[in-house]
Amino acid sequence: MEKITVIKVGGKIVEETDSLHRLLDDIAAMPGLKVLVHGGGRSATALAQRLGIETVMIEGRRVTTAEMLDVVTMVYGGKVNKNIVAQLQARKINALGLTGADMNVIRGHKRPVKTVDYGWVGDVDAVDGGMLASLISKGIVPVMAPLIHDGNGNMLNTNADTIAAETAKSLVPYFDVTLVFCFEKNGVLRDAEDDNSVISRIDSQSYPSLVEQGVVSGGMLPKLQNAFDALHAGVKEVVITKAENLADCEAGTHVVEK
Amino acid sequence: MEKITVIKVGGKIVEETDSLHRLLDDIAAMPGLKVLVHGGGRSATALAQRLGIETVMIEGRRVTTAEMLDVVTMVYGGKVNKNIVAQLQARKINALGLTGADMNVIRGHKRPVKTVDYGWVGDVDAVDGGMLASLISKGIVPVMAPLIHDGNGNMLNTNADTIAAETAKSLVPYFDVTLVFCFEKNGVLRDAEDDNSVISRIDSQSYPSLVEQGVVSGGMLPKLQNAFDALHAGVKEVVITKAENLADCEAGTHVVEK
Repeated sequence: MEKITVIKVGGKIVEETDSLHRLLDDIAAMPGLKVLVHGGGRSATALAQRLGIETVMIEGRRVTTAEMLDVVTMVYGGKVNKNIVAQLQARKINALGLTGADMNVIRGHKRPVKTVDYGWVGDVDAVDGGMLASLISKGIVPVMAPLIHDGNGNMLNTNADTIAAETAKSLVPYFDVTLVFCFEKNGVLRDAEDDNSVISRIDSQSYPSLVEQGVVSGGMLPKLQNAFDALHAGVKEVVITKAENLADCEAGTHVVEK
Repeated sequence: MEKITVIKVGGKIVEETDSLHRLLDDIAAMPGLKVLVHGGGRSATALAQRLGIETVMIEGRRVTTAEMLDVVTMVYGGKVNKNIVAQLQARKINALGLTGADMNVIRGHKRPVKTVDYGWVGDVDAVDGGMLASLISKGIVPVMAPLIHDGNGNMLNTNADTIAAETAKSLVPYFDVTLVFCFEKNGVLRDAEDDNSVISRIDSQSYPSLVEQGVVSGGMLPKLQNAFDALHAGVKEVVITKAENLADCEAGTHVVEK
């Protein structure tokens, strides 16, 4: 099967012109098929602030009121997505910006209220990997915003890591899939203070002890949970790396089944 | 050849929930293939105002500074487009939101500065009708925002009537194309004060005298110019009608070559 890389990029790197342009240069230079999934949280928070809308985060997740849903739909689906698409087109990459509503590519449901009401936040029910595979086979690079829809006319805000993992899983029947999470650090670090202490390989045997020792904790826990979920579903490899090192296949932490 | 209708909807109707829902019900009920082109100017002006950005219009066209380009990219490409797409999906219409940057579907160039500097406003160079036709033949309904790109990484703000006319023309090799401009009035009126004075048919023979008599003037002039351009390029019929009458094939003004 042909190889494909699903690349999740978030944080400052996609929201500042210089770093975004360098990233897109690297992505354009990468050989093979690819899908891009982006965030845009800082821009959403900044726009919300200018509009006098308070940003409330609970356990790293944005509480999404109706007003905030408008903000993230504008920022993720509009500004960040279209900027990336136009910049990829300038690099001769035939990008197509998508939310989950477009071609019904990711459908989900509003997260039920348990102890916390996250508002218009969605959990993924199904990704149409066949539709994506058919676009990709025509030379198109999907650029996916972290927004899905509920089938009843509502957009829903969704975590970009989740979108990336679910998209990667949906492509397993069609491609040999690698999932790359780009973030600010060099990878999963043995010592959080030392960016050179990257753990180059984590598998399902070494993982539990890393959690036990407290090496993997905080925001890294859901990221690795997403990674192992993707591996269990047939994704070949998950890489957690610094965006600047995207072109270096050896860099970062490589998460594999065993 | 199979028939297709390119429907341009703008104004308040796409920006207020109740009227938008009625419109989308009508569009969902229309038989045959279709493409939707939307505006969103009122929402863009409202967001700009909340952000303290002044809206400057010259001859009905929005002067688009870098700040205003962000606003229209967010409003047209994000909020309005994704809201329509999600609402069409709820009506079992497989909508796909597009700007000109997506799949390079409409490329253009920044309007050269003559007497007026419109800023990041674009004139259309080429619409990829083949790409649109291939999507449409798979059951997809393109929903097009009035934004194009310049191939150098920049989005450009473009008039939605122009997008609709250029899109209709690009589909002529593939379909039997009707172009419908929905707006606030019943059609082209003989007496601007009387919404029942619709001129039901205008052709290239009757048009010059309507201009001479001053019946066609103001904002209607570029709309009819767009209409005749489209007819010259092979579009079969252009209809100018009230959005509420979309389902009534006899309503409105029908513009034909002769």
